[in-house]
Parts: sequence; structure tokens; C-alpha cells
Amino acid sequence: MGAVFHYDLHVFDGKKYEQTGSSGNRINPVENYQIFNPESLDTDQWIKAAKDAGFKFAILTATHETGFALYPSDVNPYSVRALNWKNGQGDIVRDFVNSCRKYGLKPGIYLGIRWNSFFGVHDFKVNGKGEFQKKRQAYYNRMVEGMVTEICTRYGKLFEIWFDGGASHPDLGAPDVLPIVKKYQPDCLFYHNNQLAEARWGGSETGTVPYPCWATFPAPYSHVGDSDEQRIELLKHGDPDGKYWMPTMSDAPLRGYNGRHEWFWEPGDEPHIYPLDELMDMYYQSVGHNSTLIVGLTPDPRGLLPEADVQRLKEWGDEIKRRFGKPIANSVGEGKTVEVNLPETTAINLLVIQEDITQGERVREYTVEAQVDGNWIEVGHGQSIGHKRIQEIETVMATKIRLKVTKSMAAPSISNFSIYHVEQ
Amino acid sequence: MGAVFHYDLHVFDGKKYEQTGSSGNRINPVENYQIFNPESLDTDQWIKAAKDAGFKFAILTATHETGFALYPSDVNPYSVRALNWKNGQGDIVRDFVNSCRKYGLKPGIYLGIRWNSFFGVHDFKVNGKGEFQKKRQAYYNRMVEGMVTEICTRYGKLFEIWFDGGASHPDLGAPDVLPIVKKYQPDCLFYHNNQLAEARWGGSETGTVPYPCWATFPAPYSHVGDSDEQRIELLKHGDPDGKYWMPTMSDAPLRGYNGRHEWFWEPGDEPHIYPLDELMDMYYQSVGHNSTLIVGLTPDPRGLLPEADVQRLKEWGDEIKRRFGKPIANSVGEGKTVEVNLPETTAINLLVIQEDITQGERVREYTVEAQVDGNWIEVGHGQSIGHKRIQEIETVMATKIRLKVTKSMAAPSISNFSIYHVEQ
Repeated sequence: MGAVFHYDLHVFDGKKYEQTGSSGNRINPVENYQIFNPESLDTDQWIKAAKDAGFKFAILTATHETGFALYPSDVNPYSVRALNWKNGQGDIVRDFVNSCRKYGLKPGIYLGIRWNSFFGVHDFKVNGKGEFQKKRQAYYNRMVEGMVTEICTRYGKLFEIWFDGGASHPDLGAPDVLPIVKKYQPDCLFYHNNQLAEARWGGSETGTVPYPCWATFPAPYSHVGDSDEQRIELLKHGDPDGKYWMPTMSDAPLRGYNGRHEWFWEPGDEPHIYPLDELMDMYYQSVGHNSTLIVGLTPDPRGLLPEADVQRLKEWGDEIKRRFGKPIANSVGEGKTVEVNLPETTAINLLVIQEDITQGERVREYTVEAQVDGNWIEVGHGQSIGHKRIQEIETVMATKIRLKVTKSMAAPSISNFSIYHVEQ
Repeated sequence: MGAVFHYDLHVFDGKKYEQTGSSGNRINPVENYQIFNPESLDTDQWIKAAKDAGFKFAILTATHETGFALYPSDVNPYSVRALNWKNGQGDIVRDFVNSCRKYGLKPGIYLGIRWNSFFGVHDFKVNGKGEFQKKRQAYYNRMVEGMVTEICTRYGKLFEIWFDGGASHPDLGAPDVLPIVKKYQPDCLFYHNNQLAEARWGGSETGTVPYPCWATFPAPYSHVGDSDEQRIELLKHGDPDGKYWMPTMSDAPLRGYNGRHEWFWEPGDEPHIYPLDELMDMYYQSVGHNSTLIVGLTPDPRGLLPEADVQRLKEWGDEIKRRFGKPIANSVGEGKTVEVNLPETTAINLLVIQEDITQGERVREYTVEAQVDGNWIEVGHGQSIGHKRIQEIETVMATKIRLKVTKSMAAPSISNFSIYHVEQ
């Protein structure tokens, strides 16, 4: 689990983007960029809130669709350098990365290069025609490559670089970003362009993926298929026979409940913070489905994560700890069966299964059986396990429980099989 | 006489724009704006050199064709704020204006808004199509209006605001700049758009206008006529019957001699600095033809006016003083004849005639007569006088000399009639 923090000029415009969504800013430059003035900016407060939820990483939109950069770029003048805020001396990426390091979260950076309403870029293409367009396109591509170099070289080791909506392909006239990331951040996840995706989008912005969900994929880049429907299905489920390691991420904004779906702070959206039980369902259907959950958080015009969001994140982290902090019993094991003896007859209703994914995903099908009154009965079954499978079962009073891998590639390697009983 | 200082990003690119001229930067953004790094910037040195030439005002290109602003704009991020130079804290417009005040020159500002290769503006139009183009055009127009407001409100009283290539007309979709200048700088010359020109270009970049040259014009804006040829002729000569006061300016770059014509510093252009006698001819054919001479000066990548230019300007100022510093005799007068008695029989070969232009240009034709050996003989004649007419005549040995206005509108008012003898 991790967070993606969205922050851009239009957070400060006081507008509620009811109908259109804030993506109107893709084609309409924010009227006055000096509105960007987070007087109480405190990225420690952001990251502490993320840590309280149990997040392991945090990603920041260094640029989003306006083209405005949250760090003082040497190649993109439309940045914090242009602001009266801090007399142009602010660097939110640096503050953010420092806060991540302070709280032990891995920092990642999100770069939007597909849209830039200020420079005039629409779906990677500089708007216009003729020689003028060609030269500004070449300039824009160099600008992007320069920004990627800056992000990769100024802020230490990054966990992920996330190109919003992909980074297209140099052969299609897009900036050539992959070699830059590979050169300067060889261990950083590259997400993504038409050459490579080292993670994949889970096919929706619901924070969930359906089951089963495989971390493997049939191509090195993530958007393949003959139709949108086919592409989305493949993104959601992956392909157990795929040759490429490309785990899913399930993303959703924390303020995505009950008729809203906002990645950026807008006034009056507190009622749209997901309730705790919805967040727990989301957790089960993402992390519990072998996917990374990435939750959108929304710093406000003060430069703080709003109190209501901070509180919900804390409740969420606490609830995950309450449910999963201490298993009744657990085991590990190589081979087709992993058995857990319970100290006494015990009510159980929740399982966590994990594979040692350094060996790949080997399990293809499994059943779970419980010994009830001396007899083994099936209490669950499934297909994908991967990094983590959380499985709710009907409450049974069991003395033993065992995982049986009924179909696999090579010998299964189960790194964790834990048994819980959770009071809802 | 005054100076226009051209300074922009491409001064620092080390290129010699032999074939194309630097106007290629109109459609091709300068690759790396961080090259702008005038480590020894000294606007006092610029303005002192201008003063040594006798210039009364100085104008600076706050923006030229790249769109880059030499001052820290709040509305145009592509400015000195974006630079590593002085950590983004430089303001060349402020330095420039301060130096002008220090040396007693009137400061003016030149704003290029017609081209902006960075933002994508070509001949006032934001390149592109559809809704995207429309919204960026609206944004650009607001940006320009914001820059004009900044220039008009931050730097005290300005002598002239010069819109490069005009500022078009709001009805044609251009920014609405005239009301801003009129509101904040009511005494500032507005040059120019399709609504108003308070001065006019003299129809060439030779630093000269032909004779006669009238300060009056048939329209409130300067580019009128049925053909280019007609427009240029009207710009050059003006119209004695015109209802609008619109004196000419004759512009030329100091480095415009012998096959070059450069407004910006480029390497190796010292041989193209006009020789002194060419500059004196230019002076006679501009200032001496009732026109304001505006000479282009070229600060170099150090931020200094090159030594060779400084020296030539000093020589020029000295030579003007030598020739015109002390007349043999002079007079003023209302009415059709102004006579000057010489103390003894004296060789004369040069006249300066000036009208009191607060009353407009009233003289339409005049002759100059000298009393030689007791007889009045015509030694010269002409049409326009206006602010200043410098007239060379064949050397005569005279005891008296008189100006006879042979045709005028209302009573002529001659504010200066001075007699010289210049050794060439």
C-alpha cells in the first residue's frame, strides 16, 4: 500500500469541478499561477498521515496536467521558481522526499508529460502546425527529458517513476525517457511507456482488482489487446502464462465515495472520504488480490492534508493492525501442502496466503481445508496467490487447517499461511 | 537621440546568425535558457556610454522575440526568475531604469509580444487549433496585459513603451494594451498598435529619413496606405496636412555597417560598427531631418557594452559637440524672417533651424539668404523644419544671414536659428 499525493495549481483556485472534473485544466491554463501559495506547507504532516495508514511508499505529482512543476526545474520555467511563494525558492519535491526518508517511506515521483496546457501540449503533441510546431515539439521533448534527468539525479534513490497516462514512445515522436530512468535510477520502477511497464494499472480507479489477478503479463508494456474491453480485462487479471513480471496497482482517491472521485483537493469534499468499512473492502480487493493499493491523498491550499483525511487514514491503519496484527497461527512451506495446527478448537474466518515471489508466481489453483470434528472439509479455494491473498471464509471451528496446491508451475513456495478470526 | 538596447537569450548562444538573422528564434525556442548568465552585468556602464554619445533616452527590450522577460514577471514564468543567474533574483529592467535615472536619461521599455517561440505565438496568434488554441490565446492575451501592467506600474515614469512590430488590435484578437498604458503611464509615448501611434517608424532601419519629413500624419495609427510602397513613403515623409502628431524615429543598429545589420550582440561583429563619419551622416539625416535617431546597442554575454562600441559612442558624442557645441551666432524669432548679424565677415557652412513645436509645425517652405559683399544671395532652401533642421550649405563669407519663411500655416515661431562653420 502506498499513497499518491496530487498537488497542482488548481488546488488553489477555490473551484469545485462538479461537472467537468479538473481535467479541463488540460486545455485551459490556470488563470493566475501566483495563487499557488501553501503558506503552512508541511510534508512531514502528509507523510506521517500516510505512515499511520500503514503505507510503505508515497508518490508525488511533480507535474500533473497543467505542466506546472512543484520543484525548481532548470528546464521548465513554469515551476515553483516562478512563484512569489517563498520568493521562488521552494522545492516541494525535496521537502516530500526528505519527509519520506524521515518516516521510512519509499519516495516515488509522478510526472505528467502527456498534457501541458501552459506550453500547449495535448496528448503528447505540441498543438500547432508546420515548422513552428516541429521545433516546439523538439523543444518540449528536450524539456521533458531534462525534467526526467533532474528528477532522477537530484533527489536520491526513488522507488517509482510514474508517467501519467504513459510516456508514449519515442518512435511516435514522444520524449525518450526510458534510457534516462534506467541510467540514473536502475532500481526504480518504470511506469510506464509503450516500451516498458514494470507495474500495470489495474484497469479501474476503484482501488480494487477482480480475482484472480496475476502479476505476469504477455508483453513488456501494459496496454495490449484488440479492443478496449480486452485491454481492460487483461490489465485487471493479468496472464498466468505471461513472460513479463508486471504486478497490478489498484488506485483510488481517498475522496472517492458517494458520487465524487477527486484526486485533487476541492472545497467541501469531506463527505466523500471513504468510510472505514469501504476502505477495508478496498484493501481486501486490492492487497488481498495480489495488487498494490495506491490511495490518492489531497493536500489542501494551506499545504496540509486535511484533518478529516488524516483521521480516516489513522483509523484505517489501526483497523488493519487490529485484524491482521496477530494471527492465531501461521506456517510456511515448500511443496504442495502447508498445514497449520491450532492449539485448540478455534473459530477462524480469515486467511492470508503469500508466495515467495522472488521465485515467481507458481500456484495456479489451491484449496483450503479445515479439520472440523475430525473431518477435513473444504472451506475455500482459489487460483492466484502471488504476493498476498486475503481470503474470507465462513466461520468454522477448526483444530487444523491446510493449504493444498492443486495446480502449479514447479514446486510452490509458500512464504506465509496465516489464520485469523476477525470480529466484524 | 537615444539608444535601444537589445538583449535576449540568444546573445549567449555563441552563434553567428549569418544567413537567417536571429529572427529564427521566433519559431525555434533557444535550446537552453540557462545560458543567460551575464556575470559582469553593469547597466551603469551601458547608460554612461549612451550618455557619452549625447543620447537623451534609452530603451530596453524587456521581451523580444523569444518571449523571455528580462524582469521577474509574476505572469510570465519564462523570465529571469527561471534562471540560475543570481538565483532567479535578477531584474535587468530595474537595473536599467535605475541607471537611466542616475545618468539623467529617460527610460523606455520595448515589449515584444508579436512573437514568442516558447509559448508558441506567431505573429500575435497562438499556434494551434480548436478550443485548446482559443483558451491558450485568451491566456496569452491576459499574460501580455499583465506584463504591460507590471512594466507600467513597477518602474516609475517611462518615456516610451515600444511594442515591437506593433501590438495589433484587440478587435483582431490581440491583447488590449492601450488602456493599460494610458491608465498607468498617461505621459508615456505609446508606440504602437492599430489604434494609436504616438511616434512612427521612419520606414527603414538605416537610421535616416529622407527630406522633407513632417511630424504630422493623416491617421492616429502609423501603417496606412493602399500598398506597401505607399505606406513606406508616408512613414518616411509624413503629411504636412495630417491632423495627428506623430514624429518619426529613425532606427539603426550601431553594428550595421558594411554588410551586417545586427540588433543583438554576436561574436566578431566589431568590424561592423559604423565609422564616425557614417554616424555623423546618419545624425544629419535623422536628427537633422526632424526625426528622432534611435541607435541599437548590443550588450554582450558578459553583461557589458563592448569596449569598441563604448569608444565609438564617445567619439560620436565628442564630434557632435565639436560641430554643434558653439554656434558662431544665433537668433530666435516670431514671424516670417529671422535675421542674424555676424560680428565680422565670417565663413559659414552649416545651419541649425528649429521651430517651437509646442505650436506644431508651421513652416512649409523657407529660404536662407546670406549677405555677401553687401548683396543678399540665397544659400539654401527647404520645406520641413519641425524640431530640428540641420542644413549644410556651400561655404560663404557672410556678414549677415537670414531665414525667410516663404510658406507657412499661421505665424512661424523659430526657436533657434544657429550659424556654424565646421572644418571637416
